[in-house]
This record gives sequence, C-alpha cells and structure tokens, in this order.
Amino acid sequence: MADGELPDNPARPVAVDVAGWPPSLADFAEPARSAVPPEVWDFINGGSGTETTLTANRTALDRVAVLPRVLTGVDRPRTEASLLDRPQAMPVAVAPMAYQRLVHPDGEPALAAAAGAAGVPYVASTLSSTPIEEVAAAGDQVWFQLYWLRDRGMVADLLDRAQAAGCSALMVTVDVPVLGRRLRDVRNGFALPPHVTTANLPGGRDDLAHQGTPGVSAVPSGAVFAPALGWADLEWLRGRTPLPLLVKGVLDPRDAVRAAEIGVDAVVVSNHGGRQLDGAPATATVLPEVVAAVGNGCEVLLDSGVRGGVDVLRALALGAAGVLVGRPMLWALAAGGRAGAEAALALLAAELRDALALTGCADPAEARHLRTMTGS
Amino acid sequence: MADGELPDNPARPVAVDVAGWPPSLADFAEPARSAVPPEVWDFINGGSGTETTLTANRTALDRVAVLPRVLTGVDRPRTEASLLDRPQAMPVAVAPMAYQRLVHPDGEPALAAAAGAAGVPYVASTLSSTPIEEVAAAGDQVWFQLYWLRDRGMVADLLDRAQAAGCSALMVTVDVPVLGRRLRDVRNGFALPPHVTTANLPGGRDDLAHQGTPGVSAVPSGAVFAPALGWADLEWLRGRTPLPLLVKGVLDPRDAVRAAEIGVDAVVVSNHGGRQLDGAPATATVLPEVVAAVGNGCEVLLDSGVRGGVDVLRALALGAAGVLVGRPMLWALAAGGRAGAEAALALLAAELRDALALTGCADPAEARHLRTMTGS
Amino acid sequence: MADGELPDNPARPVAVDVAGWPPSLADFAEPARSAVPPEVWDFINGGSGTETTLTANRTALDRVAVLPRVLTGVDRPRTEASLLDRPQAMPVAVAPMAYQRLVHPDGEPALAAAAGAAGVPYVASTLSSTPIEEVAAAGDQVWFQLYWLRDRGMVADLLDRAQAAGCSALMVTVDVPVLGRRLRDVRNGFALPPHVTTANLPGGRDDLAHQGTPGVSAVPSGAVFAPALGWADLEWLRGRTPLPLLVKGVLDPRDAVRAAEIGVDAVVVSNHGGRQLDGAPATATVLPEVVAAVGNGCEVLLDSGVRGGVDVLRALALGAAGVLVGRPMLWALAAGGRAGAEAALALLAAELRDALALTGCADPAEARHLRTMTGS
Amino acid sequence: MADGELPDNPARPVAVDVAGWPPSLADFAEPARSAVPPEVWDFINGGSGTETTLTANRTALDRVAVLPRVLTGVDRPRTEASLLDRPQAMPVAVAPMAYQRLVHPDGEPALAAAAGAAGVPYVASTLSSTPIEEVAAAGDQVWFQLYWLRDRGMVADLLDRAQAAGCSALMVTVDVPVLGRRLRDVRNGFALPPHVTTANLPGGRDDLAHQGTPGVSAVPSGAVFAPALGWADLEWLRGRTPLPLLVKGVLDPRDAVRAAEIGVDAVVVSNHGGRQLDGAPATATVLPEVVAAVGNGCEVLLDSGVRGGVDVLRALALGAAGVLVGRPMLWALAAGGRAGAEAALALLAAELRDALALTGCADPAEARHLRTMTGS
Repeated sequence: MADGELPDNPARPVAVDVAGWPPSLADFAEPARSAVPPEVWDFINGGSGTETTLTANRTALDRVAVLPRVLTGVDRPRTEASLLDRPQAMPVAVAPMAYQRLVHPDGEPALAAAAGAAGVPYVASTLSSTPIEEVAAAGDQVWFQLYWLRDRGMVADLLDRAQAAGCSALMVTVDVPVLGRRLRDVRNGFALPPHVTTANLPGGRDDLAHQGTPGVSAVPSGAVFAPALGWADLEWLRGRTPLPLLVKGVLDPRDAVRAAEIGVDAVVVSNHGGRQLDGAPATATVLPEVVAAVGNGCEVLLDSGVRGGVDVLRALALGAAGVLVGRPMLWALAAGGRAGAEAALALLAAELRDALALTGCADPAEARHLRTMTGS
Repeated sequence: MADGELPDNPARPVAVDVAGWPPSLADFAEPARSAVPPEVWDFINGGSGTETTLTANRTALDRVAVLPRVLTGVDRPRTEASLLDRPQAMPVAVAPMAYQRLVHPDGEPALAAAAGAAGVPYVASTLSSTPIEEVAAAGDQVWFQLYWLRDRGMVADLLDRAQAAGCSALMVTVDVPVLGRRLRDVRNGFALPPHVTTANLPGGRDDLAHQGTPGVSAVPSGAVFAPALGWADLEWLRGRTPLPLLVKGVLDPRDAVRAAEIGVDAVVVSNHGGRQLDGAPATATVLPEVVAAVGNGCEVLLDSGVRGGVDVLRALALGAAGVLVGRPMLWALAAGGRAGAEAALALLAAELRDALALTGCADPAEARHLRTMTGS
Repeated sequence: MADGELPDNPARPVAVDVAGWPPSLADFAEPARSAVPPEVWDFINGGSGTETTLTANRTALDRVAVLPRVLTGVDRPRTEASLLDRPQAMPVAVAPMAYQRLVHPDGEPALAAAAGAAGVPYVASTLSSTPIEEVAAAGDQVWFQLYWLRDRGMVADLLDRAQAAGCSALMVTVDVPVLGRRLRDVRNGFALPPHVTTANLPGGRDDLAHQGTPGVSAVPSGAVFAPALGWADLEWLRGRTPLPLLVKGVLDPRDAVRAAEIGVDAVVVSNHGGRQLDGAPATATVLPEVVAAVGNGCEVLLDSGVRGGVDVLRALALGAAGVLVGRPMLWALAAGGRAGAEAALALLAAELRDALALTGCADPAEARHLRTMTGS
Repeated sequence: MADGELPDNPARPVAVDVAGWPPSLADFAEPARSAVPPEVWDFINGGSGTETTLTANRTALDRVAVLPRVLTGVDRPRTEASLLDRPQAMPVAVAPMAYQRLVHPDGEPALAAAAGAAGVPYVASTLSSTPIEEVAAAGDQVWFQLYWLRDRGMVADLLDRAQAAGCSALMVTVDVPVLGRRLRDVRNGFALPPHVTTANLPGGRDDLAHQGTPGVSAVPSGAVFAPALGWADLEWLRGRTPLPLLVKGVLDPRDAVRAAEIGVDAVVVSNHGGRQLDGAPATATVLPEVVAAVGNGCEVLLDSGVRGGVDVLRALALGAAGVLVGRPMLWALAAGGRAGAEAALALLAAELRDALALTGCADPAEARHLRTMTGS
C-alpha cells in the first residue's frame, strides 16, 4: 500500500447505477417483464414440471456460504480468468439461449456485441433467431451451441458454417433428448410469433414451428432433432472439429469423467435452468463431486441459477472454472437492447470484483481456495 | 442413430393437451374440485389428524433429486415393465380407492376400463360402489383389494367372488385396524349419499352406512371389519388363494421382510395417502430401507403422493418396482369420466417416457441404477 | 380373531364428536379463544421472548415420524399404563397450570374432577386459584406441584397441607428461578382480575399481585419465591416427604441423572411450554438423550407441546413413560367447564387408542419398541 | 438459601417496561422506524445484495438451542464479565456504527454516555458524525474503531487523536476493502443530509460525501480509504499502539489464528451485520470453529444479529467472550436519545441476567459450559 497518497480508488464500485440501469442483475427482471408479452416472459423464465429444480437451483446457491479471507493485501482484484485456456475478462460466458428476437428486435447480434464489448464469450444457440454468420460477425468470441440433428449431414453443415463464421468453440448440449414439460408454455398456448424464426435451420420457422402443438411450437420438433445421442457421436464430433469442445448438461460425475476421457475441453454442470428434468438436482449441489471426479481431466463450468457476482464467487469456491449466465442477460437485452446487456455485464464484472475484494482474492483463480459451508 | 433420415420422431411428447385435457396430472385437481361437492373433495383429498403425513409424502418426493445420465444412445425409451412377473404398459397400477361413484356416476367400471385401455392394473376396492363382478368385467387386469372382515367366511366369499370374476391378483390392506381420524370428514359431517353403496358387502349401504356417526358413516364399521389381523391370517390367505398376493400398508422394513418370508409377491410401501396414522413417515423416506431389507424376497411398490411421471422415476431410482397412483385418477375420473382417466394415464405414460429419456434410461428397469440425492 | 362372528367393534372411535365437542384437542382452541378475554388467551398460550422455543416444541414433535408395525394381531389396544408404578387409564397427567379460574369460574376443581373421571392424575399448581384442599377433594389422584418458596417453613407447610389433603405425589418445578419474559403479558399489561387469587399462599392475591408491575402481577413475586434452589434442597425434599417425587423442568441429561441418583421417581423433560428460557431446546429433541442417560434410574415424562394422541405415541416411541398435557386442557375447561375437560380427555384416550392400534401396539408399553425417524 | 426470610428479591426482572420503554430490544425497532426517514431506516437496517447473510445471521442464532442446568443454587447471577482483561458490567460492547446523528440529533455522545452509564464499552466509529474527542468525553470506556486510510500518516493521526482523547482500546475493521452492495441505499438514492458529516476526517463531509454517486455518498470514498490492508499493516499497528487491539470482521478460523499470533487481544467474528459480502456465513455458524482454532490465543467476540440477552447467552455458550450489539442501539437512540439507549442497555442486562438465571449460571463465564444443540 502506498503511504501518503490519495490516488483515485480503483476498487470503488463501478457506477453503473448512475446511467439509469438497475443496481443488480436481478433488478433487470422487472423492466424486462414490462417489455415483453406475458407468454414470452413465461417462456424465458419458466421451468419444467412443478419447477422444483428451477427453485432448487437458487436455494442451493443461496445456501452456499463462502468464508472470506482478510488482510491479504489485495488492492484491486483482477476479474480476468481463463476459460478453455484463453484469457477472458471474467470467468463468465453468456449461455446459449434460443430465439432472442422474442425479447428485443435486435436479438442475438445485440447480445453478442455486448458480450464482445465486455470481453466474454457469447454462446450462439442452434435455435438462434439470427443466422450464425450474422451473430458471429456482431460478436467477438462467439461459441456455437449445437443441438444434435437426426441428419448427421446437417450436423456437419452446421459445424462447418460455425467454423467458417469464426466461432471459436463448440458447445454440444446433451440434456435435451426430449424437451422438458414446460407447463407454463402449454397453459399459455405459446407459439413463436411470425417474426421469429429458427434462422440456422433449413426452412426456418416454416418447416418446424407450424407442425407443433400449442406450447411446443417454439421448440424443435423431434422430426429434426435426435434424441439418441451417444458417446460414439461425441467421439465423432471430437474428431470432426479442431475447435475446443464443451459438453453442456452433465450432472452425474461418471458422465463428466467419461467426457473428459474422450477429450472434451470442458463440461458444463447444468440442468438447463430447471427446464429439462424437473427433479434433477441443483447444479451447486452436484458441482463439488463433479469437480473432484474430473480432477484435471477438463474444465468444469456451472450453469443454472447464476444471478450475480456472488454466485460466480460461489461457483469458483466450489471448484468451477467459471459460469454461464443466462436469463439475466435476456432480461437486460429485453430491458435495454445492447446497451442494457452491456450494463448488465459491466455490473456483473463489478459485482465479481467486489466479491473477490471482499474475500481477499487477487483474482478468480484464488477463489478456488476459499472455504465454503452449506446451510445458514 | 440413422444418418441422413428425417423420420417421425417417436419421442416427441404425446399431445394429450391438444385434446383439451390438463397438461399435468396435478392439473386435473381443479376441474375435479369443480365437479364434486366440497365434502366429497375433502373426503378424497384429506388426510388424518393435522395432515402431517399427507404433506410429508409430497415434501419427501420433492426432495428426491435424480441424477440424469447423458449420451446413453437411447432413442425412445420403453415404459413397459413387469409387475408381479407380468408385463405392464408401465410400472404403475391404479390404487384401490373406495366409493368411486362419489365423484362420477360411471364410477369404478369407468376407471377400470381406462386402466385396461392403458395396459395397467386396476385395483378394485372392497369398498367399491360397484360389485366386483361388474368392475372386473369392465377392466382388463383387475386386482382385488381386500379389507379383512371379522367373519372369515365373508373373507372367503369375497375371495371366491373376486377369483371367479377374473381378478388376477389379491392386495390385502393391513394398515386399517381402525380408521384414521379424518377431521375434514368429521367437520363436514360427511356421509355417503343415497346413491352410493358398499356394493360388495351383504346389505350394502343399508347395513353399514346408517349406523355410523356423521363423518364416519362413509367408512366401514368395526362391527364388520376386523382390526386384529395377524401374520397367521396372512399365512392362511397365502394358502387360500393361488393368485399373486400383495400386502399394502407396510412401512417398517422388518414387516416387509416377514411378509416376503410368508411368500407374498409384493409389499406396497404405503401410509394410505396420509389417511391412517398421522405421524407415519413419508413413503419415499422409508422406501430405500425397505428395498434393502427385502432384497430379492419380493417386489416393493410405492404408494402415497405420486403425482406424475417424475415421481414414478423417483420411486424406481429409490428401488421400487413400481407405484400405485391414487388421487389423481379420481380427479381425472371426476373431471372426465373414463375419457378423463384415459387421458390422465396416457399423460402419465408420456411423462414417464420423457423422464426416462431425460435420464438416459431405455426402460424403467434401468432407472434403478440412477443415483439419487436428498435435499435441494 | 373370532371367526364368523359380528360382535360390536370395541376398536371403533369414541364418538365424542357426536356430543357436539370438537373432533381434536387442537380444535378446542377456537371455542376457548372465544370464551376468554384476549389478554387471558395470550397469558395461557404465549411463550417467552420471541417464542422460538414455543414454536420449536411443535416443530420437533411434528418431525418425529413413527413407523407402524402391522399384522400384530392386536384387537383393541389398552391405553392403560403405569406412572410412578401406579396404574393409570392412560400414560397422561394434566400438567400443573396456574390460575385456572381465569378461564372458567369452576376453575381447578372442575379440571381435577374431569381428570379423576378420566382416570388420570391432575397436578395441582402452587399457584392455584383454589386452595389445594378443595382441589384435592374434587379430584381423585391429585398430585401437588411445588414452587419453592424462600421461606422453607412455608414449603414445609405447603407440603403438609398437600399430604393432608390427600395428594398422592409431589412435583417440584425447577425451571423457574426467575420468570421467563412473556412479552405478550407485558404488552397487554396483563394482571390478575380481582376474582382470581393465589389461594394456596398466605394473603392470597393481596400480598402478591398488587406489588407487581403490569404484565408480571399474575406471577409470583421473587419476594416470596426462591430462585436459588439447589440439589441440597432437592435432597431435603426427598427426605421430607414419603410421596413419590417428580422433578419438572429438566433438559440436560446430566441433571436428569443427578435427580435420579437423589432418588426422585420421575423427571419431566419440560421447557415450561416455551414460557421460560426462550432458546431452550424442544423437549422432543432432548428426550431420547435423557432417556438413554437415565436408564432405569427413574421414569421420564415429557411436557410442552403435546396436542393429541399421536404426540403421546411419539413421546412413548422416543422412550418416555408418559406425558403431561397442559394448554389443551385449559382450552377444554374454558370451552366447556368440567364437561369440556372430560370430553377432551376422552378424546385424547380415543386418539391414543387409535394411534396404538394403527401401530400394532397392544398397549403403551409396546410403543417404546417402535422405530422413529426424524424429518419428513 | 436463607431459611424463613422474605428479603427483597434481587432476581426479579428489572422493571424497565414501567418507564414506558419497549419490553424487548427488538421492540425498539418500531418507534425507531417512526422516528427516522424511510431511507435512513433502510440505511441502518439493510444488508448487501439479496440480504441472504443478513437473514442468515438471525436464522443461525435462532437455531442455537441452549440446554439449561437446574438446581445449581444460583440466587442472583452476576452479569459482570471481563473483556480485554478489564471488568465490564456485562460481556457486551456497543458496536461501531457510522453517522449516529442520522437517527438522533444528540448522536454519538448520547449513545456513548448511555454505554458509560451502563458500564459497557462504546466503540466510536471512524465515520462518526461527532469528533472522537467529543465522543470520548461523553463516554466512559470508549474504544476507537479504525477504518484504514490510504494515507498512513492519517492513520497515525487518528490513532494519536484517539489515544489522546482517552480511548481505551483500538478496533480495526478488516472486512471493508470495498463497500458491500447495499441495494436499498442505491434504490433510495440515499445520501447524507447536510447536517451529518464525517467529523473525524479532514474536510468532513465536503471532501467526501459530495463526490459519491447516489446511494454511496454516505460511505467513505475509496479515494481516502485503503482496500489493500495486509498482515504487515496489522503488525505495524500492533507495534504502533499500546492499546488493546481488536480485529473486527474475521470469519475464517485461519485468519483468527494468524491475528492471535500477531498479538491482537481479540478478534470479532463479524460479517458486518450482513452489510459486506452477501453470501458470507452467519457468525453463529462459524463461531465455534473460530473459538476452537484460536484456543487461548486471544478473546473471541461475536457480532451481527444480536437482539437480546438470549443471544448473548447463545454466543457465550458457543464459546465467545462477549458480543457487540449494534442496530438495536441505534433503534433505542432513535426512539429516545440517551434515555432510550440507557433503557435498552438496562433491558439487555436484565435479559442476560434472566438468561443466566434460567440456565443456572452464576455469571457469564459459567455459560461457556452449557451445552448447545443446533436445530429445533
């Protein structure tokens, strides 16, 4: 510590609230709710079944107490961390989420651009309402999320397009052999509005959305998507692309170990935000076991329920290399387009920096040495 | 997985909602509530005492998290499973429930027919409001549930009638030495309406229902039913019938072991839906211990609180061979007669298929290898 | 089981509801609340501090699940049990409670008479609003509860009066060195009305109640009561009376062991119904440890939170010889005088009989062999 | 116990309610809420983030059950205890809290005087709205709380001023490297009103408060405060002052041990009342581990959530030497100035005395031998 000086304080909170944005990520929910139709709100925020898992994700994170260290001499923590061996502004990526034009006309390009400005990866969904080429052009580090199609030729095509568009990693989602039963959507009779299409797939909305029943027309039909994905398919994929490969939707430690053995670069501990198996465990509950089982085999990320910098800290302290943040980014996009999303990511970075400062950590890597306790 | 094809997707959700039925079993409750008088609603849905056990059944099931497996290569899971060594469309039977004409004029035959159409057993209650002969004729696999009468001759008569009517298994209920204190019924002064009788018993309603006090007149009088059932009686019963024998209402593992030693084919871990001893444990709580204690001695089924396919999955993952589903079937019967009940069973099968798909299981038997965690 | 007979069913529920009484002990609360002034209601039902312990008593009992046994061949369970080596109609005594004329003009004699009619002990409080002689005359088995006075001569006098009046046991309360902070009474400015006096003490209300501040005038002044009670005093008491001696208000197993060593006949695990130390553990939580520590040294009773026959069963299954039931008896007295109290005790016996029947126990002693689980 | 006497009862509750003050510390909240503007209420009572830790502090304390001892022969417990090897009227100090003129015009001197009258230390905040010299003059035992400034010369100046003013101990706060995110203040746009200044710092409010953004202007700017405090700084401080030294804001046992090794006299287990890291553990949860780790190395105090004498007892039983009480003292100051604060401290002493009496302890030191249980 410099003695006798009064420099500008680099550790003071980023004054994102000054610009009129909400003071926490969770506070973006209300303006978002006002900005979108009720059935879109439900589509974004709902879970499957009785939403037991959706609720458990938050309960489990809230129960993770982190023990701060003090007097560590850290001045201004760095939020930078590596994901997939590449430096990031913070150990966070924007989670893959379908049909972002549902919440804002600027859709995926706006959110990708915000992520790029914030220095974090944006994961582009197969079910994007904007073609991957446009999304990749708008962002900086864009990762491509793959839903496996029945037609392996289409899988290869999507891969080739994503790589050609400059995507820098591939994330294959493995927890959607069938769609979870999202009762809000069924009750609302939710269907994609005409201006939102499945832009990455041949025929877009026309081929897919119209064949569904109310409440499921916004999701891929089984006629195109493949439920029977197996380890051999993952091995094929591993051999097919030179890109870093992440597997999203792993909860059982044995599956995480097997994925690492196949050579994936990271597994994402995820229950799809409580949208697939209602009754799956909270991700914060299983994370420590997955981390222990995988060891140095690959990176472990956490997904589902992250709502702020303290949650990132919790995940790090439980052993994750980083997190995906999903719904709050849609809230921010809905509330303010690209500017809203940039504000939300700046806020998340500021929250993470504060959380690191308050636990005496110089950077996210140090947070893995913090002790955690479960319960109050 | 076939490469390059776009076949119909066999794993897409059954579109039962299209037909105007509720999208989950729990959602049949509201139309049922509208369809029956309030005191009938309470009679069906209430528990004993302060309903501690009734509530605990759901709490315990909700706390069972199941860890999905991924990338198992399963395309369309089979829901078929065997109960009592006989193949069933799913590991589910319709629980025995009294006086089904209370909720719909078509009563037991309608529900038995729906179960038959769905390929699952229907358990006909001793306290049926339709004679067992008519119920058995309406259904396909009809099992007979036996309340033990003081008059062993009457027990033998009932047995003979059930066998003659074609019932394919016998389920003896052992948790009703006296009736639980169902305070809703007492407060409501609930009594069977004139059109509902105890059709299987000599004299029907006239002999029984009129002698009771308000609130207990809908249940068998101790003058006829035997509280002092013992293991010797069960041995007598085992020797008296060639039918597969199930014992319903077991919670202590020692009793399950003894039942298996006597040669019963299955025990049903049940607290009578929270209607008998208020203060009994939730069935999901004791199930694993019972399964471990019984080993291969007999099958173990679970009852009390099942409200959907995820609950079936939970029971299987905890070691049960299958479940009985009760109240939701009465809701469905009340809401739509046989058609409603068929819709509910189709929905349950679809939910189970999805739950198996989402956990990577090819069939119910594989679900027993899933890991479970208790808590959030 | 007799074969072929249809005798009257001895196990059918006692039809107390027929007579217009509530169907559960808890249901006596509402008529009681209507029958007494709000500040009396609060005085009876309140706890100390933030009522943490008051609430915990119920929570802990509700979490005790008891595993029924089945097929035990029990016809009609006996509720009879011994307390202090003397036979009782059930393992229950009416807890000592002050100033019963607050809730009904007939006061202590009415409740003592009801207990006598029901065949259970009535514990007469030192702070009775009726002299012990009248109470003892009204009841059958009347035990005397002793608050230790600073003046040992007065203690000896009370003892002599109680013995002369025919009291058959002595219960010394040891958890009131000072009065718990009962904030409801303070907020209500509660004071004894003129017609209610401390009838057992010289001068009655005139000497005591007028010297207090609002909210504490209903309780004994420290000027008369002794806070500094010690083990030597208990030894003195043990030597002073030939009556069976109970110590009420023990929570730490070490104190229970010491009391047994001094020769007391029973300890009552009690937190004074949550009215003394707010922050004391629930009695159901500590009971098993006390039972294990005491062994055969003396009987162990449970107090605080008992609201029905299932709670008696829980206490027995946790190892208690019996329970004291308090507030519900005041509710019943308030709601219906002696007749109400008799109805409540008959209901409690019926509830206990049903709970024993539903767990396959022939009598209360067998309930000690039931397994319990904590949690849902 | 004296036989045959009727002396004044020294153990009867202090009749603080007689004077019109609330009957519990928690009850000072409502008059305080009425006495201050809503944004000041929020500033005082809020926590950071979603207030998880704020809530957990109370939940954890409420779950600590203390097992009373009986028949210990204690007449009137002493509340006196030593803190920092000096005798105190009770094992309590008034916690350091900023800007006390926000809640009452008499501010810090009034609260310091009340603490002095009650015989307990008052900890004067660096962020006092009254200069330390005036505060020290108003109180008796005044301890000085130090926020570390970037300018070590200013630290030395503050130290010298505090010592010259007669402060008798130094408490350095180590859990504010940055300010927690107190969303209530941000939402309220809270700023210090003109009459409240940072009286201990050069330039007072003019230099500091106006530079902030809404919601953070009431707290020190990072331009002046030092985030990068390290163990070397603590060693420097230990060598710089002969006063007893306390370190406030320790949660990890390893940090407590290290502080003890450096020679601090006490650590305060604190999460800053839930105002710094939201997600930090409740202090009652980590206290036992800290006590065990530190052994005889230094004293351990507890802070955050204390609301009455039972909480002091809980902390003692968990091994603390004493507690700091914060918000309730601001409530009392707001509600009644110095007189209110004196009433609150008298009440706290009376509550502690009662809690000791009810657990059979002669003094606070004996409470460390009580058993505790967690849960109901």
